[in-house]
Amino acid sequence: MQSVDVADRITAEDLRGVWSALHPDERVEAFRMLNPEDGDDFFQALTAIDQAEIIHELTPGERRLWMRFLAPDDAADLLQQVPGEERSALLELLDDSARREVKALLAYAEDEAGGLMSPRFARIRAEMTVDEAIRYLRRQIQTHLETIYYAYVLDAEQRLTGVVSIRELFAGRGDMPVADVMQRSLVSVLDTMDQEAVAKLFAQHDLMAIPVVDAEGRMKGIVTVDDIVDVVQEEATEDIQKIGGMQALDAPYLQTGFLPMLKKRAGWLSALFIGETLTASAMAHYEDEMQRAVVLALFVPLIISSGGNSGSQASTLVIRAMALGEVHLRDWWRIIRREVSFGLALGAVLACIGLVRILIWQALFQTYGPSYVRVTFTVATSLVGVVLWGTTCGSMLPFLLRRMGFDPASASAPFVATLVDVSGLVIYFSVAQFMLGGILV
Amino acid sequence: MQSVDVADRITAEDLRGVWSALHPDERVEAFRMLNPEDGDDFFQALTAIDQAEIIHELTPGERRLWMRFLAPDDAADLLQQVPGEERSALLELLDDSARREVKALLAYAEDEAGGLMSPRFARIRAEMTVDEAIRYLRRQIQTHLETIYYAYVLDAEQRLTGVVSIRELFAGRGDMPVADVMQRSLVSVLDTMDQEAVAKLFAQHDLMAIPVVDAEGRMKGIVTVDDIVDVVQEEATEDIQKIGGMQALDAPYLQTGFLPMLKKRAGWLSALFIGETLTASAMAHYEDEMQRAVVLALFVPLIISSGGNSGSQASTLVIRAMALGEVHLRDWWRIIRREVSFGLALGAVLACIGLVRILIWQALFQTYGPSYVRVTFTVATSLVGVVLWGTTCGSMLPFLLRRMGFDPASASAPFVATLVDVSGLVIYFSVAQFMLGGILV
Repeated sequence: MQSVDVADRITAEDLRGVWSALHPDERVEAFRMLNPEDGDDFFQALTAIDQAEIIHELTPGERRLWMRFLAPDDAADLLQQVPGEERSALLELLDDSARREVKALLAYAEDEAGGLMSPRFARIRAEMTVDEAIRYLRRQIQTHLETIYYAYVLDAEQRLTGVVSIRELFAGRGDMPVADVMQRSLVSVLDTMDQEAVAKLFAQHDLMAIPVVDAEGRMKGIVTVDDIVDVVQEEATEDIQKIGGMQALDAPYLQTGFLPMLKKRAGWLSALFIGETLTASAMAHYEDEMQRAVVLALFVPLIISSGGNSGSQASTLVIRAMALGEVHLRDWWRIIRREVSFGLALGAVLACIGLVRILIWQALFQTYGPSYVRVTFTVATSLVGVVLWGTTCGSMLPFLLRRMGFDPASASAPFVATLVDVSGLVIYFSVAQFMLGGILV
Repeated sequence: MQSVDVADRITAEDLRGVWSALHPDERVEAFRMLNPEDGDDFFQALTAIDQAEIIHELTPGERRLWMRFLAPDDAADLLQQVPGEERSALLELLDDSARREVKALLAYAEDEAGGLMSPRFARIRAEMTVDEAIRYLRRQIQTHLETIYYAYVLDAEQRLTGVVSIRELFAGRGDMPVADVMQRSLVSVLDTMDQEAVAKLFAQHDLMAIPVVDAEGRMKGIVTVDDIVDVVQEEATEDIQKIGGMQALDAPYLQTGFLPMLKKRAGWLSALFIGETLTASAMAHYEDEMQRAVVLALFVPLIISSGGNSGSQASTLVIRAMALGEVHLRDWWRIIRREVSFGLALGAVLACIGLVRILIWQALFQTYGPSYVRVTFTVATSLVGVVLWGTTCGSMLPFLLRRMGFDPASASAPFVATLVDVSGLVIYFSVAQFMLGGILV
């Protein structure tokens, strides 16, 4: 049921398909080939970064047209993507009232309620009857409201006193005053509230829109649930990138320049590398043991990576459960008990596999020398210890980070692995000294 | 603006705060202490798993009340969480028409459009005038529609012929036929479409709701954008858990039992372990070299973890960019070119840090013996090689997995690390043989 395409037109569908592969000037060229209705739809659904790129390439006349096409909150998002001097020039293209609205929105940070909201909401007065309110809404419709799903009841000072859904208005008797059908107890957020907290409120209350008020209780706008989809995607992207062991990019992968990207990756990678140099020190400490029994060195990567992998599982699980509000700081004791059990169980599983593997290789190739039984048990015991240590560190690190005011998502797989690598070596060589003392080392 | 709490009542806010720490019977007890309005709101916003748990603990009378309270799509989600025999008993509690609706929804998989949709949408006929349509909608309101934001225009065979938003109805002249104000070209989805694809459509078209039709074009229900928030969270959770090196849980962390959780973690962990045993083989291959120059063994963890960490960054970036639709299969060549550059740059950064670190330690403690210059260059060169190899493997593995029909998110940090560990050892010891040949090894 997509609209029909004329011979020399391309469809929005086609363009979306190839978008990522096009250069900015090709994008504009293709964008101009969309039929007008598709063009509106397509432009509206682009990210603010892509919109800014298109606007930059357009002629002055087109630029004016598209800037005026955008809703004020979308226009503000776009302007936040362009440098200062271009921003003022684009602001000039708007009509007076839109420019005022957009400027007010630009005062907010992108990631707070004020930066998310639309100032165009449906407002009514408590003294109106239901029929008057519906007629009044029908008139406001002409000004392109963000949604008319809810109508907000404001007093003379613009303070929010209640809300009524369009459904309730429709269901109400026509001659009843709005004051009698509106809900007085309602969820609202401060304009400075963080967007992640706003998203949690939506999830908790199953709402389509939440009103935004300033510190004096005056209503400034509404955040609608479709904005929350973007917030949720954004926050998940940030967490995933942190879990991958880097700083969050804040822009699409292909649109991040070489140097900014290098900075965001090199920082964590260097920190992890410096942490990991401790493994060289730990290894140096056991150099004599390895000199006497080089067979011990063979299992170092296997042992430490097992600790890192089990730690990565545990930290990822806890980070996500925290982000979804399933796990809170005070749950740490429940989590550590669970993860100690998992550490023991998972360690036992790996120890068994390791045991079988070494015995088979020994039988086939005599790889591990005459003391292979003791070597086998050293490896198996170390595996249980290292995996247990991995799940414990991995699950507790997000708690520690949050307690200290950092983002728990920074407890990335590589971070946990680095932490566990050094201690894993100490566990392994200590077990070796105990098991093989006087025989090999 | 939260509602006031009576002395012996607790507020929904309080209960949400402690929910994760409560046992099922404590949850029900606390839930009963909410005042009725809060209770409705609270129950509605719970996950289907939590709702099923509450329902299970309630008295038959309460159970009937709450089952009838739920919208058909929410009731179907709940029923999908309970075992077969309990499911039929709960179905019996619904009235006839609701039971029919819920049964129809239960026929769909949870993660397809049919499983997401609500069958209660606003329907009008093309022949009605705008005023008639508004009056007709006002009457349908009584039956608890999911949303009246859009009214769908159906023909006599229930086939979808157009859509009109409530805003357009309000803006239209009262005596115009609906056929003249409705949009005929509209986005709809098949009832069997995967929920992730549905979420992408919402993002592409900036819609509040999408109609769901069956293979014959008959309209079956609507998916609203608030359902999409949950889909997006769910899909991100699955990806994050896979990136952490395990199977996705499909349930909250604290509500997943010991054995199911163990299975989901032990599987990947064992597979990675078996892959990692190749490092022991690779190390055994270079046993003679290490025997002669045990100093080489000291840097093994540092070298291989650097490859793993840079690979983890690259794979995470690509996985997320793919999930967001920023990067497609055909972009692989652009990505590999970028990631080779990043690999070289990041490798150079780490090589410099490593060089400085070894030279300082050598000056202070003479740790690395007389051939320390050659050792230093072996480590530095290997770092560039291993990091380059890490970013290349890390960025290409998601492409390879998707190409083979697997989920790219399975290219987890631990998976990439394991892959790079084995090859990293080969790179390191090859460089060592070349650099130190005839001198140390």
